[in-house]
Amino acid sequence: MNVADRKITARAPFDTEKLDRLMHEAGLDALVVTSRHNVQYLLGGYRFFFFDAMEAIGVSRYLPVYVYQRGRPENALYIGNRMEGFEKELGRIAAPAVKTASWGSMDAIRLAIDHIKALGADVKRVGFEPSFLPSDAKDLLSKELGGASLADAQFVLERLRAVKTAEELDLVREASERVVNAMTATFDICTPGMSKHDIVDRLRREEHDRDLVFEYCLIAAGNSHNRAPSDQRLKAGDVISLDSGGNYKGYIGDLSRMGVVGEPDAELHDLLHEIEEIQQVARGAISPGARGGEIIAAGEEAVRRAPHGNVLDYTAHGIGLVSHEAPRLTGRGPVPYAPYDADRPLQPGMVISVETAMLHPSRGYIKLEDTLIVTEDGWEAPGDIARGWNIAGKA
Amino acid sequence: MNVADRKITARAPFDTEKLDRLMHEAGLDALVVTSRHNVQYLLGGYRFFFFDAMEAIGVSRYLPVYVYQRGRPENALYIGNRMEGFEKELGRIAAPAVKTASWGSMDAIRLAIDHIKALGADVKRVGFEPSFLPSDAKDLLSKELGGASLADAQFVLERLRAVKTAEELDLVREASERVVNAMTATFDICTPGMSKHDIVDRLRREEHDRDLVFEYCLIAAGNSHNRAPSDQRLKAGDVISLDSGGNYKGYIGDLSRMGVVGEPDAELHDLLHEIEEIQQVARGAISPGARGGEIIAAGEEAVRRAPHGNVLDYTAHGIGLVSHEAPRLTGRGPVPYAPYDADRPLQPGMVISVETAMLHPSRGYIKLEDTLIVTEDGWEAPGDIARGWNIAGKA
Repeated sequence: MNVADRKITARAPFDTEKLDRLMHEAGLDALVVTSRHNVQYLLGGYRFFFFDAMEAIGVSRYLPVYVYQRGRPENALYIGNRMEGFEKELGRIAAPAVKTASWGSMDAIRLAIDHIKALGADVKRVGFEPSFLPSDAKDLLSKELGGASLADAQFVLERLRAVKTAEELDLVREASERVVNAMTATFDICTPGMSKHDIVDRLRREEHDRDLVFEYCLIAAGNSHNRAPSDQRLKAGDVISLDSGGNYKGYIGDLSRMGVVGEPDAELHDLLHEIEEIQQVARGAISPGARGGEIIAAGEEAVRRAPHGNVLDYTAHGIGLVSHEAPRLTGRGPVPYAPYDADRPLQPGMVISVETAMLHPSRGYIKLEDTLIVTEDGWEAPGDIARGWNIAGKA
Repeated sequence: MNVADRKITARAPFDTEKLDRLMHEAGLDALVVTSRHNVQYLLGGYRFFFFDAMEAIGVSRYLPVYVYQRGRPENALYIGNRMEGFEKELGRIAAPAVKTASWGSMDAIRLAIDHIKALGADVKRVGFEPSFLPSDAKDLLSKELGGASLADAQFVLERLRAVKTAEELDLVREASERVVNAMTATFDICTPGMSKHDIVDRLRREEHDRDLVFEYCLIAAGNSHNRAPSDQRLKAGDVISLDSGGNYKGYIGDLSRMGVVGEPDAELHDLLHEIEEIQQVARGAISPGARGGEIIAAGEEAVRRAPHGNVLDYTAHGIGLVSHEAPRLTGRGPVPYAPYDADRPLQPGMVISVETAMLHPSRGYIKLEDTLIVTEDGWEAPGDIARGWNIAGKA
């Protein structure tokens, strides 16, 4: 394979200069990218439809691979499944070279190894995604690239995606607005006797009708804090917490809204107001140039002052192609990571999910979660409707 | 942790004696199972709703882990995400012990390592799934289980699932019938001017309406052999090939049916008849006790005799929780594997997908794919309707 002969078919759909800089800082000469979200990003939004939902095929799994050499975007290669020949034929795969010749993890990584070897002896340190490379592919990569060492590239890839482009922000807006609209349409048909399963089935349908990929719905009702869909049935007076993720072209809308079967009483108004105040304090800390950690500090301080601070959960995290991604605002979170952005300035184009939940001992689970886009002069909140008590069964 | 103190909460939802025998034959003392399909199987159908579609969370990914010790089903442990505490509370997780304490691949595998160490020095050889264990988890497992060696357990797990239970067959029937019904409903509304995207959008909706998870649709129209959804528009006289996978509670329905815009002419009738004859020859080779390889041999012989043998593609493969699984009838297939079942007798409860496609140079892509369940006296074909030319736009 003669790397020099390959022609550049188009400008890369991502910021190659930024990627080169991040790779330089991390001491990486090349990348072997294998997570769906990062492959989608490097290919400008492309995802192969056949394996959009499932991954297993035979005794192996679908493994898309994007190989990138620092400073040489023209040498990038995308390795896809054989059936992706249909997509290549339609000109949908924005990479300088495309091979649609694999079925499983091993034949895909073998093609990546061949390509890296052809790049030459300059490639001494290769970045990869430890959680998103299957062990068999990693073992072969490690063995065959005897001369080059492997290193974790997750930080590099996450920083590359941390500030969204205008096109990405449009998708975030669409995802957020569509999820909230699906929720309000669902509250409209909630009536006593419906089960949590029924409600989630309806929300799923409402999201599908809005061209979202339904990811999940956490749902609590009545005074229970259990958020799994179940046969629990709605009763008059019950509160309903919907917390759903739906993705639009890969970008996740993840918001929470509250409903109530009947009219909310004064206490319910007070409790949601208490949550709303924390959400607003957190928003106040969001502006370009502010340190990321200020969002966490402001919200946590508001929780300490709140009447029900001892039963409040507050957090904020970046969101986009992954439901928890950069900016990294706090070290407290699902998967342990350094709070890289706690002391760094927020930048326009970053997207942050802010969430406050109250586990009230007698009134149930009450939560708001919003998506905030950092703008030039503050923030924008797509899907910022229906944040009070939505009266169930209005339709 | 005192393993002996753990009580058996219920009989395992799978055949532990068969698993023990397969593990004995493979020389495995314990298993660390991490693929969604095998975890679902060992938990009797349970899948955690939150990560049913997505996998990434933070810089890592969801990793469900089932640890099993040969001959000691009472020592099995399921390790789930922290949010699976909701599912555990509802009694949905059928494992003797359940820990819902992880977020990513590393904390999940650490809990598995702790458990294996607690099982004692008898555990010398641990089976795992090379393509379905992330590399970071594999590296830690390998390091921490210094005393025990790791070995590929995919064959053991696939054989365990090769013969379906009555309950599984019901799900296969439902999946197959629902996919075909979604297709006929879609053909009914196909009219000239619609794009392949429009048709797939409608099929997706029809599958959703039937409570299927839409996996994919390969679609060809007119005289093109390109099977990706696209803006190609239907014209009068076009043939339409729909090849879609939809899953019902994890079990995949995967069938292909043909439509035509207008009335099929004599040649189209002949071409589909030619395909149908091959499909019927293949069915004739399916009965309990017949060697699996006979299905392949019979179909390939029929292709050789067929007028358009040079443009026909024929194959057959097992199907269930994975779109290509045991029985393994031929070594020719997506992911290289040994044709384990070529010389073994077919057994009632095995499920086989039989597919014949014609890449006709002028009339387009014409295909039938059917699902066959091996029964006590032959086979059963769920969803065995609409196998001729479906007239588009009847509705």
